[in-house]
Amino acid sequence: MAASPALPRLALIPGEPAGIGPELCVRVAQQAWPAALLCLADPDSLRRAARQAGLALTIVSSVAEAELPRHRPGRLLVVPEPLAAVEKPGAPDPANAPQVLATLDHAIDACMAGRLDGMVTGPVQKSCMNAAGIAFSGTTERLARRCGTPVVMMLANPELRVALATTHLPLRAVPDAITAGRLREVLTVLHDALRRDFGIARPRIAVLGLNPHAGEDGHLGREEIEIIAPLLDRLRSEGMALYGPLPADTAFLPRALRGIDAVLAMYHDQGLPVLKHSGFEHGVNITLGLPFVRVAVDHGTALDLAGTGRADPRSLATALTTAIELAARRRAAG
Amino acid sequence: MAASPALPRLALIPGEPAGIGPELCVRVAQQAWPAALLCLADPDSLRRAARQAGLALTIVSSVAEAELPRHRPGRLLVVPEPLAAVEKPGAPDPANAPQVLATLDHAIDACMAGRLDGMVTGPVQKSCMNAAGIAFSGTTERLARRCGTPVVMMLANPELRVALATTHLPLRAVPDAITAGRLREVLTVLHDALRRDFGIARPRIAVLGLNPHAGEDGHLGREEIEIIAPLLDRLRSEGMALYGPLPADTAFLPRALRGIDAVLAMYHDQGLPVLKHSGFEHGVNITLGLPFVRVAVDHGTALDLAGTGRADPRSLATALTTAIELAARRRAAG
Repeated sequence: MAASPALPRLALIPGEPAGIGPELCVRVAQQAWPAALLCLADPDSLRRAARQAGLALTIVSSVAEAELPRHRPGRLLVVPEPLAAVEKPGAPDPANAPQVLATLDHAIDACMAGRLDGMVTGPVQKSCMNAAGIAFSGTTERLARRCGTPVVMMLANPELRVALATTHLPLRAVPDAITAGRLREVLTVLHDALRRDFGIARPRIAVLGLNPHAGEDGHLGREEIEIIAPLLDRLRSEGMALYGPLPADTAFLPRALRGIDAVLAMYHDQGLPVLKHSGFEHGVNITLGLPFVRVAVDHGTALDLAGTGRADPRSLATALTTAIELAARRRAAG
Repeated sequence: MAASPALPRLALIPGEPAGIGPELCVRVAQQAWPAALLCLADPDSLRRAARQAGLALTIVSSVAEAELPRHRPGRLLVVPEPLAAVEKPGAPDPANAPQVLATLDHAIDACMAGRLDGMVTGPVQKSCMNAAGIAFSGTTERLARRCGTPVVMMLANPELRVALATTHLPLRAVPDAITAGRLREVLTVLHDALRRDFGIARPRIAVLGLNPHAGEDGHLGREEIEIIAPLLDRLRSEGMALYGPLPADTAFLPRALRGIDAVLAMYHDQGLPVLKHSGFEHGVNITLGLPFVRVAVDHGTALDLAGTGRADPRSLATALTTAIELAARRRAAG
């Protein structure tokens, strides 16, 4: 008996309960998706978000992940993960931080065990996690530690993909974090992911310099000469199509981006302002290098909007679309 | 006898002779400008550029700066500054670096003496200056040193103005350069220039943090808490309309920029990629804080295009338009 074409099975996680995450999950649940969705959340929190947004939502408690059905609009399968305290929209409560972590960790467990193909995650309030005494520098970093693999954070919108060599580091710590070892790891993960997950046979990657003007022949810093350029030469000789190190200010000119599949920025604020400026509403955050798919929203908890019923679900919807595409491609490749 | 409305008097400097600067000067000279222009250059270099571009140019040698006439299309007043060697398009020659510096210094002298109202400058090849043994980290820096005033580099296009707290520094040197003293100086220059040169009565300035997420409450760096935020509070109490410190990745969202007159980035690659991505062809580089007007192109020497006769003069033309506006406003204010 032939199996029917397998549907991607994805965890959906709201993130910070006092932010807009629960409302976003309720909103994306209103539409049809070619996937099985399993939401890890406090069902009452989702019900409150649905009420605030004036939307109907049928919640089906589920733990039988093996037999997940295709998502039906207005209906959400939920693995209950109770909050310690009722969320107050706009005011994250450290008492609920362990629940936020638990939803993430349970999704990781299910993905690692092969019961799910990936996860789509809402925004987390890092400062609240830290206030609760949880060492947490970001969901991406948590995933890397739990899975024991080097990962790369890549932000993408319909016109641009930007991967980061370093993520949530104080600026002062960035230069020493740019080593040949880290760059080889990042470029290998990025290159493999563009091939496997995005179906690009020969990815062309623009690599930025660390310093302004990519160091301008050593006059504005020597990391390009000593670290980045030699490593790019080695990786080119191994077959990668790499451009750079390039000055960051001109690498993003529309004509410079033509034919480029992804830009590798050396650090957070070198790459993300331009990406968000150019298409924030449909931006997503993709974690590359994991044994499963993970796509997140490209925005924060928007505490000022929480509880108003006016949150914009476009980034979460794009994240879901992207996760479905990536998971389907991985499944097709076996 | 009443004086006729005074015309702005501006120096025009090609910059690196082996780059596209000479061709750009020839091209902008083809059109009418409500200003008196005085080009400091090697006349033969301009003639060669005109020939390569297939354009007619009448060169009038001039030193009588006091009686500069209104610019006439196709005719350029030139103060001859001979090159040491005939330029080879695409291959900057350190032998010509002293000439590049001399044109700049002579324009500074004329501005400081009040014979000119300002200057519009083409791109310089810093590495060639340095190869010639000239300590030169940028035209902006040279102007600051020669004039003995604190200056601020601001890039602008029709939709965005971005000023920089630090300019051409290795990334490693940036955090220690962000001091309360430097930020006060920069914000004072920026605020005063937006008022005086741009006619904005109460400028609203968005100030970025140094670290990703503006330090995220100290979890990603403490410079925002220890240096930037306290200084902004003090300047607000003195009457400035300042927003921040803001996370760089979201400060450039179109909705965040609404009502903002300028963004102050802490360093080069935090602010310029988004500005250039969003409107490179009409971007200009304005030096604020000088006793005269200085506007430059927003691009480099484009050595690959030099000598082809296909250089795009839109940035230099916008620089000229901007310089004329700023000089006229200063003149009107007396």
